[in-house]
Amino acid sequence: MSNRKHNFSAGPCTLPLSVLEEAQAEFVDYQGAGMSLIEMSHRGKHFDAVANEAMTLALEVAGAPDDFSVLFLQGGALLQFSMVPMNLLTPGSQAGYVNSGTWAKGAITDAQAYGDVYTAWDGAGDNFTRMPRSSELEVRDNTRYLHITSNETIGGIRIYEWPEVDVPLVGDMSSDYLSRPIPWEKFDLVYGGVQKNLGPAGMAVVYVRKSILEKTNRDIGRYLRYDIQESKGSMFNTPPVFTIYMLGKVLKWMKAEGGIPAMEARAAEKAGLLYDTIDQSGGYYNCPVEVASRSHMNVVFRLPSEELEAKFLAEATAADLLNLKGHRSVGGCRASIYNALPMASVTALADFMQAFQQANG
Amino acid sequence: MSNRKHNFSAGPCTLPLSVLEEAQAEFVDYQGAGMSLIEMSHRGKHFDAVANEAMTLALEVAGAPDDFSVLFLQGGALLQFSMVPMNLLTPGSQAGYVNSGTWAKGAITDAQAYGDVYTAWDGAGDNFTRMPRSSELEVRDNTRYLHITSNETIGGIRIYEWPEVDVPLVGDMSSDYLSRPIPWEKFDLVYGGVQKNLGPAGMAVVYVRKSILEKTNRDIGRYLRYDIQESKGSMFNTPPVFTIYMLGKVLKWMKAEGGIPAMEARAAEKAGLLYDTIDQSGGYYNCPVEVASRSHMNVVFRLPSEELEAKFLAEATAADLLNLKGHRSVGGCRASIYNALPMASVTALADFMQAFQQANG
Repeated sequence: MSNRKHNFSAGPCTLPLSVLEEAQAEFVDYQGAGMSLIEMSHRGKHFDAVANEAMTLALEVAGAPDDFSVLFLQGGALLQFSMVPMNLLTPGSQAGYVNSGTWAKGAITDAQAYGDVYTAWDGAGDNFTRMPRSSELEVRDNTRYLHITSNETIGGIRIYEWPEVDVPLVGDMSSDYLSRPIPWEKFDLVYGGVQKNLGPAGMAVVYVRKSILEKTNRDIGRYLRYDIQESKGSMFNTPPVFTIYMLGKVLKWMKAEGGIPAMEARAAEKAGLLYDTIDQSGGYYNCPVEVASRSHMNVVFRLPSEELEAKFLAEATAADLLNLKGHRSVGGCRASIYNALPMASVTALADFMQAFQQANG
Repeated sequence: MSNRKHNFSAGPCTLPLSVLEEAQAEFVDYQGAGMSLIEMSHRGKHFDAVANEAMTLALEVAGAPDDFSVLFLQGGALLQFSMVPMNLLTPGSQAGYVNSGTWAKGAITDAQAYGDVYTAWDGAGDNFTRMPRSSELEVRDNTRYLHITSNETIGGIRIYEWPEVDVPLVGDMSSDYLSRPIPWEKFDLVYGGVQKNLGPAGMAVVYVRKSILEKTNRDIGRYLRYDIQESKGSMFNTPPVFTIYMLGKVLKWMKAEGGIPAMEARAAEKAGLLYDTIDQSGGYYNCPVEVASRSHMNVVFRLPSEELEAKFLAEATAADLLNLKGHRSVGGCRASIYNALPMASVTALADFMQAFQQANG
């Protein structure tokens, strides 16, 4: 494909071109079966193989220990904001939440509908420009779990020091999913939407520690129960067939590329190039984030004025560097550089930033 | 595509070939944008147009009045089993459910987690071989809604007489969605999974009467609130982009083919041919369903013995007539003949049934 653009979208976002081309080739007639995969029964042999491979790879690529199961659930991370407290917050317990920005706040709002929730650390005072150190976390007695957001897509910050606390963690990892190792021993549950690092929108991947499923709440609808979804292999109802199929292909690509170690190294390299460009601009480009908390997935930056930002975005678009506008709630610019975004796109952006500064300095 | 098979799957199932071919052609590079639609921001102009068209068509093709909104929600019909009572069953009210089979029972089970629920009619005594007449429904005082399942996919029965009751209806129409007119004045809410008549698996289409949204419950997670989803145009979080895109294409195809009147006429013709074949077989083929309640989407039938059924299924498969096995919970055979299944496939099946009977009578 010759006219492929540099796509810095915050999600949905760039997927590996080879994955897209494979899916296109087999879209109408899947493996000579005389029909598309999306026309097949989810209980049939073809999709069974697809789903099994995706689940196996989701555990393998993530390095999940044997005491974790993986679930494929519709509703994205947002439905997990409700499902986590619905299932885990049993009567008499409470949950602590790290308020690190927009997405953490959303998780807190939804959890409040289902139990006692408190803020274990609040980044509002710093305008959400950094993540907490463990020593700053205030975990109360009788806390069932501490909820963290590993990467805030809008604020452009990431957890750089996994919390050292005496309670299990629950993590929303949507926007840096499988781009770095997960310290499994700390977690009871990890979740994230797939539409950034893992595939097309329409699903969350949830890793859950099996032993906690014996003690989850039961007085909720069956779709929403982790224990039922786990016992049915995420096929309690008709699963999102196409999304699982694409997830499997992306995971296979990740594995072939070297898995999480390779993704982590590339992310550091890509983010490093952009932060270096910012830091070496003499203040022309400015990243409001504390250095230690800088995201390796979402690089946010400002220019000297909103007028220059508008010009920057317009000229970037003209140069095929797309979707660099910051989230509407914070403004500025944002380059999302997820796993599948090639280094060449980041190099092109860094070059463009330098040239733009020279022309508009 | 020359080797396309006759696909009688109960869902996911046959989609229009022209829709699949269109989607394939534009899969990697959407309208020359230099990226796939599934790589694009759901807030961008391309997907905005796709989503708007799908919503407009979903209302138009269904003939929904102005006081209805359409929602695109992940989780399939199964999550609606929970969302309906969560939102509608306010304290002090109760809900009546028509127990017409497997899917109705599921809806009842989930609703019981969220409020007072009773069975307004129970088909268990007839082994779920028929739907009720209005005169058989027992609707109690203070009933917020009466829940019906318009078509039971497993039992092969459909509602042939819409309930005449004094309370609003809520309808699960998953397996005959948009294959016949909906009497909107009777309904507060209509829902169904898309994976039969409307597109690939991974979403429910929900029509909700706008005026009821002022009185729905608020003490639930935001993803699960109809009022929030409606106010955000089903984009409160990242929507299932590909599913909505395909839904739009299928609806456009339906409209071009003549809309619901054409779908209804074709369904009657396709079902009629199969039921005639059954009825004219002298009892060789047997449909256990009461004639008035016979589904126009899922034609269930038995052969004289399980051995003959196994032989029938094996030879049908060899003749490229696929997925005719009945649901594992009831056995026998089932031909699902949804909107996109061509008449030619049904004719081929009817011919095969006659030939099989002659050879094995």
